[in-house]
Amino acid sequence: MSAGKLYVIGLGPGPAAWLTPEASAALAAITDLVGYFSYVERVAPRQGLTIHASDNRVEIDRARHALDLTAGGRIVGVVSGGDPGVFAMAAAVLEALENGPEAWRSLDIEILPGVSAMQAAAARLGAPLGGDFCAISLSDNLKPWSIVTRRLEAACAGDFVIALYNPASRARPTQIHDAFALLRKLRPLATPVAFARAVGRPDERIVLTTLGEADPGLADMSTLVIIGATTTHSIARAGQRPFLLTPRFYGAGR
Amino acid sequence: MSAGKLYVIGLGPGPAAWLTPEASAALAAITDLVGYFSYVERVAPRQGLTIHASDNRVEIDRARHALDLTAGGRIVGVVSGGDPGVFAMAAAVLEALENGPEAWRSLDIEILPGVSAMQAAAARLGAPLGGDFCAISLSDNLKPWSIVTRRLEAACAGDFVIALYNPASRARPTQIHDAFALLRKLRPLATPVAFARAVGRPDERIVLTTLGEADPGLADMSTLVIIGATTTHSIARAGQRPFLLTPRFYGAGR
Repeated sequence: MSAGKLYVIGLGPGPAAWLTPEASAALAAITDLVGYFSYVERVAPRQGLTIHASDNRVEIDRARHALDLTAGGRIVGVVSGGDPGVFAMAAAVLEALENGPEAWRSLDIEILPGVSAMQAAAARLGAPLGGDFCAISLSDNLKPWSIVTRRLEAACAGDFVIALYNPASRARPTQIHDAFALLRKLRPLATPVAFARAVGRPDERIVLTTLGEADPGLADMSTLVIIGATTTHSIARAGQRPFLLTPRFYGAGR
Repeated sequence: MSAGKLYVIGLGPGPAAWLTPEASAALAAITDLVGYFSYVERVAPRQGLTIHASDNRVEIDRARHALDLTAGGRIVGVVSGGDPGVFAMAAAVLEALENGPEAWRSLDIEILPGVSAMQAAAARLGAPLGGDFCAISLSDNLKPWSIVTRRLEAACAGDFVIALYNPASRARPTQIHDAFALLRKLRPLATPVAFARAVGRPDERIVLTTLGEADPGLADMSTLVIIGATTTHSIARAGQRPFLLTPRFYGAGR
């Protein structure tokens, strides 16, 4: 039996123009494609490629399946949107590896980075991540809500720009409201806020607002929410959406 | 005079396999290339492309130059390593725009995201950014050191994984030592630490260590330093470097 290989592939936020050549080459080399339906659909079917799409929301099951196929000698690609290292499949694969058969520890595994949703949103908005920033997943499927609030508080104490991943889903519609209620106590209401939905895809929608006026209900599974730091502000432009900027300098700097 | 355009282009960490097709297309379309020597050198010269390379460390000067060329009708690319939105040229361009002539506000400016150093390092290491994380630039050229320490303290209070950009340079050799001295008071000495230097380039070097045993002197201008959260740990592998994992779940989660 030939040696298998597992590629953990970041597909980027959507368009082919944001898919790295490295990821394209891996997609052309694999024998088996494993992923959630909406990501697998982005990969063109071809002869010799077995597609294992699933609507199972449990990422660890997909990770185990991919590792099992790899152990069987297949050349496997497990795909994520964005960057697999940012709230995506790289951690799920390593969690499965850690708790799986000893033989999995000698598998050949390569993780291929991609453009994350946060970066695509930032590029569209201007330079909101131009200063120090943090990324927080709002999902409490995997951690208690108390950890989320502790991190939002710390992010405000440090005056970080905040990128919120997984702000809401059908099963978790209320947390983004709770997060905004907390943030409104900790940051000025005039703080710029952006809802960047499906950036790079046909249904892209950008909403620029403020912490005080934001409707948290705008956030869904495909939305990346950016909350400015105290230095973040907008720059008016002629006939175009303002740019959002967090300057590199701070206070006495510059 | 034809209308100019400015592309703010992320070249990624180095290899062509991490350069997005969008960035490649922009590099083929521009008439003028503006950037720091070491980034401009990555772009193949061609007929019709005027190269404005500089060793000026002042990014705002390059940004003004690029905007000025654009206002003159040129198709300009200003290039950064990594992602221009993460401690790179996007913020410098918008700072210059904000403080420049009113006419610059109507220029056509497009920011093209790229794979950042943090993501390339994470992909090599496993999944160290698998949980909530923050990115902090250690340079105090643009902000007082007190802001850096405030943010390191907040990052520890929130138990974020920390990615340190610009950890050291010839002009700033001591700050990474000061940062480690502070972090050693705030996080367990067994916390995993990685020095990921020049990832994807011929002189790539990865050092896995712990907060207690790390030699901060390993960090230079080309190094990305990752400090684990309390949940970050390594996974032994057969005959290969261990993986570093920050699980998606936390405490009571899962």
